[in-house]
Amino acid sequence: MSFADRIRHCNNYDPARAIPLWAGDHRIGWLRRDNAEALGCHREVFAVERDEARLLATGDADAVSRSVDEVVETLVAERHLPKWRNETFDVAPRWGAPPIFRLDRGAVPFFGVRAYGVHLNGYRRDGDRYWLWIGKRASNKQVAPGKLDNIVAGGIGNGYGAAATLAKEAEEEAAIPAAMIARAVSAGALSYRMETKLGIRDDVMFVYDLEVPDDFTPANSDGEIASFELMPLTTILDRIRTSTNFKFNVNLVILDFAVRHGVLRPDDPEYLDVANGLHRPLD
Amino acid sequence: MSFADRIRHCNNYDPARAIPLWAGDHRIGWLRRDNAEALGCHREVFAVERDEARLLATGDADAVSRSVDEVVETLVAERHLPKWRNETFDVAPRWGAPPIFRLDRGAVPFFGVRAYGVHLNGYRRDGDRYWLWIGKRASNKQVAPGKLDNIVAGGIGNGYGAAATLAKEAEEEAAIPAAMIARAVSAGALSYRMETKLGIRDDVMFVYDLEVPDDFTPANSDGEIASFELMPLTTILDRIRTSTNFKFNVNLVILDFAVRHGVLRPDDPEYLDVANGLHRPLD
Repeated sequence: MSFADRIRHCNNYDPARAIPLWAGDHRIGWLRRDNAEALGCHREVFAVERDEARLLATGDADAVSRSVDEVVETLVAERHLPKWRNETFDVAPRWGAPPIFRLDRGAVPFFGVRAYGVHLNGYRRDGDRYWLWIGKRASNKQVAPGKLDNIVAGGIGNGYGAAATLAKEAEEEAAIPAAMIARAVSAGALSYRMETKLGIRDDVMFVYDLEVPDDFTPANSDGEIASFELMPLTTILDRIRTSTNFKFNVNLVILDFAVRHGVLRPDDPEYLDVANGLHRPLD
Repeated sequence: MSFADRIRHCNNYDPARAIPLWAGDHRIGWLRRDNAEALGCHREVFAVERDEARLLATGDADAVSRSVDEVVETLVAERHLPKWRNETFDVAPRWGAPPIFRLDRGAVPFFGVRAYGVHLNGYRRDGDRYWLWIGKRASNKQVAPGKLDNIVAGGIGNGYGAAATLAKEAEEEAAIPAAMIARAVSAGALSYRMETKLGIRDDVMFVYDLEVPDDFTPANSDGEIASFELMPLTTILDRIRTSTNFKFNVNLVILDFAVRHGVLRPDDPEYLDVANGLHRPLD
């Protein structure tokens, strides 16, 4: 068991098992071949060939979203897709560009479109010793139930920026007040591409650090986190190395925190695997 | 002119123009095709074929180094290589592994072996405003004369670790005392692959941050830096975006500093190009 195992787990994507999904000149998704097959009969919205698929629906983002939604509805009925999550993500040629359409979050891995999220390291420190507030995910979560998590994390829904998503989730997930989350420091972006039961996760995580006061204790109000615990970073790193207690992508966020704060250093044999491996090229 | 231009400049490597250099099962270098041709007549030490080359010399690191040195001597005499620099770098299958041989620094780009260096961001801050101490490289430097540089930077010579190299260079280049450099924080590793006049630079930079006291002024003692100036980070970022005043790889180190400290944030249109592009995969 090693740090590199955690990173490999999030990058198990195999290009031979998927085909690109195009919108005009932009590659906007990766369809696993079984998902591509399921999509093949919706010929008015998608053209699916052997080695690539293409979005055919035209019009503004509202019009294209409606066309895609009709396809998604059928896919849910046919059980190719899980239930709707009633939260939509922007699908755009690149981060910050105007969306081509909006997609229900439940359908994101089916199409393998890039999804963006925020993760917050809520920490306390004494000299060079660090502690992180760690949440335990509720046992009824759809993804990674019962796994350990950052103090705050969430997907960036359509129309939201990274900082606005962080503030919203900080309040809902951990009762972090607006004045406190305003002090969070944007600290980078991590990326991975992972095949799951549903398809391909092509994820970018914007990471933030927040030094929290000694008298602050997070409290969850949306039912997504069962409990919080303040854990020494050295203990957390041991558990990351030797267990899968943490949610798959949270391992990456905490390893990045340890690298940036000099807790993992170049004399660690895995240092370059970690420092480099957290940043999959955004091709 | 953009931040991404600076990153692209350091990653202008074109795989079609080079062949891999192998030592047993390990790919240890990238030979540009003209360099491979120059190496072709040294058949007792290297086997050069159309699409790959192989180190033939055997024995311990001392013995292999002697064999390679003889080849380097001829290459220098034939003007395929610049003058010796009388400083050797370890050539190893991976960072931290025992070296297969040691190579004069002047020959590193000819063989395209991976080189490791340290770069220090020497900063002052007031709230979320940052200043960096910036050096101006001496006009007689072999690489990037007259360009702007970090307060301290240097290659990791054979037998040195990253932290030991940082301490040595901090004293020689900027008169940073041992007690002060001991407070530097290891903050990550950046990577790029660049074709230069001499061959291929396949570089990893270990980056460190040091908050320096207000009453500290760096002073150079080895003649490599002509002068130092304390510059606001916002001014530096403007110059990085609009000029090539900074040494090619120093642009990357400072962009990483700006990302990690929340000065460049996800709402910058180039954010992901920067945050992701500083970490070329170490294949």
